[in-house]
Amino acid sequence: LNDKQQPIIAVDAMGGDNAPREVVAGAVAAQRDGIARVILVGDRERIEPHLVAAQARIEIVHAPDVVPMDVAPSQAVRGADRSSVGVAVDLVRTGRAHAVVSAGSSGAFLAIALIRLRTIPGIMRPAIGAVLPTPKQPVVLIDAGANVDCRPEWLMQFGIMGSAYAQAVLGMRTPRVAIVSIGEERGKGNAQVLEAAELLESAPIHFIGNAEGRDLFSGRADVLVTDGFVGNVMLKLAEFESIALQTAIREALLSSGLDVKLGALLTRRAFGKLKRALHYETYGGAPLLGLRGNCIVAHGRSSRIAVRNAIRVAATEVHEDVIGKIGKLVAPLVQAVRA
Amino acid sequence: LNDKQQPIIAVDAMGGDNAPREVVAGAVAAQRDGIARVILVGDRERIEPHLVAAQARIEIVHAPDVVPMDVAPSQAVRGADRSSVGVAVDLVRTGRAHAVVSAGSSGAFLAIALIRLRTIPGIMRPAIGAVLPTPKQPVVLIDAGANVDCRPEWLMQFGIMGSAYAQAVLGMRTPRVAIVSIGEERGKGNAQVLEAAELLESAPIHFIGNAEGRDLFSGRADVLVTDGFVGNVMLKLAEFESIALQTAIREALLSSGLDVKLGALLTRRAFGKLKRALHYETYGGAPLLGLRGNCIVAHGRSSRIAVRNAIRVAATEVHEDVIGKIGKLVAPLVQAVRA
Repeated sequence: LNDKQQPIIAVDAMGGDNAPREVVAGAVAAQRDGIARVILVGDRERIEPHLVAAQARIEIVHAPDVVPMDVAPSQAVRGADRSSVGVAVDLVRTGRAHAVVSAGSSGAFLAIALIRLRTIPGIMRPAIGAVLPTPKQPVVLIDAGANVDCRPEWLMQFGIMGSAYAQAVLGMRTPRVAIVSIGEERGKGNAQVLEAAELLESAPIHFIGNAEGRDLFSGRADVLVTDGFVGNVMLKLAEFESIALQTAIREALLSSGLDVKLGALLTRRAFGKLKRALHYETYGGAPLLGLRGNCIVAHGRSSRIAVRNAIRVAATEVHEDVIGKIGKLVAPLVQAVRA
Repeated sequence: LNDKQQPIIAVDAMGGDNAPREVVAGAVAAQRDGIARVILVGDRERIEPHLVAAQARIEIVHAPDVVPMDVAPSQAVRGADRSSVGVAVDLVRTGRAHAVVSAGSSGAFLAIALIRLRTIPGIMRPAIGAVLPTPKQPVVLIDAGANVDCRPEWLMQFGIMGSAYAQAVLGMRTPRVAIVSIGEERGKGNAQVLEAAELLESAPIHFIGNAEGRDLFSGRADVLVTDGFVGNVMLKLAEFESIALQTAIREALLSSGLDVKLGALLTRRAFGKLKRALHYETYGGAPLLGLRGNCIVAHGRSSRIAVRNAIRVAATEVHEDVIGKIGKLVAPLVQAVRA
């Protein structure tokens, strides 16, 4: 794919709380803006009316089934031949698409992608790399929920994958990678963290040691490595705290006197800018890293803007060859293990 | 101690970033406001000038040494006979004080308190119960950092202790206790969480099942149970995100045009109220729960307001007999284990 060629992105039209309406609208916007050529995967009869309404032409690949949000991963794998996310993943496996985006169940997506696409040689486990908007700069949190229990070697690989992603997609030259622990000093943490820190020390990345929960917002690190349990708790805490604080501010302003209300009106523009900067929509989706295929998990509550941005992230992954870059970084480790 | 008697609180005058100045000032305020009778413990020569300046009379118990923030717990235990926190804990052990407050190293405080005071019969491990201010109501997060690796039985006891504390000190009648996991549905989580959830189900508390990171702010639970690694990461993330967002808002307002600046001025009062409600100072300190003695860890950066409020929390713990209440709740479990 050269710079002028458009990547082809398979989009699971049926995944997420607002599917297919918002997913189709996001896909239309992405294709109209020249971000990518999109293939919509799902129930043709439910997708077409939205395309007609938008006066847009996008290729549809039919898939009769939808994976429910609370499905067991094993069941999702069994039904993959007929489900929208399963068929979308298969478009990547067979080379018809360069990447796949889904706002449906991330557990189902991951399970299907792992079986159908397999991992990059040398990678032990795929991980979710969430990109969190913070006031200063985005931070990559990896693993944000794919693996609840992790071996230290996996954590080391998460550091490599997160660093490669931050370089390729976020344009950071030398991402500062840290491991999440309960104190900045070396030697603080549990056995798993201490062992992983030692491995990260010798990995081909810029490892800066331990980070704390606060470092998601301190600007001290660009990539935070942690297991999928802690990462998922952090992601959901951070995302909802931002929403809760913004709600509390709005309520405090609205329940006040006329002078405060006037003040709120005057400050609205400045707040709006900040709110957009901190909104999950800005980064659109979290990559499943470590697979032989570009997979982007979009937020379950994705609006059309979030879907469009997730497609943009997918297109950037393709253009920047994230998979190739991760493969190159882990290749020496694979050889070291074999030797 | 009847309702009219003042509890006696031993305060480590040398602990924390702003010691002894802010600690002494907080102690003076607490005693002046009739919250407690305070005993200041530490280097008499460094404490006295601040008392003289405040024209206040507070009993001093001399201790020559200060425990550094980065000390190893074992070393802190060895030097406990001469350190301000060690001598303060001993005042509780010998019955000269009802509670102890320290803003110094929480690891050192915990180690000394565990050795000198021991646990309540039946309690396997003490835990830090952080009280987090949120827009809706305070939430008790337990364990916030005492135990990096936890057995399911410990987590069950943390739930009991957190519930007893929320009832006694925060005045909640039937605290809703949940365990932190990666999904609300039962069966989501790692092996440790699943086993602990089963034990919590049969504990003498109102257990509502799994919670997610977002539930620190959703108002769905009053007590969140987790191991000390996850709890510490959550505490530091939540605290610093609030600070980071408030800073970002201030900067966004100040870097804007004159109209926005005027608006900011008008909204200042409403913001101030919210800021105070969300500030860590409001709850003053986190209790070390499960010990045979009331111990309150104040924030390392404690101001005089935070110290005063930590003394208030300590006094409430004494008045409400939190230790006795925890003892009663765990007694049946102890008998069950013996039977």
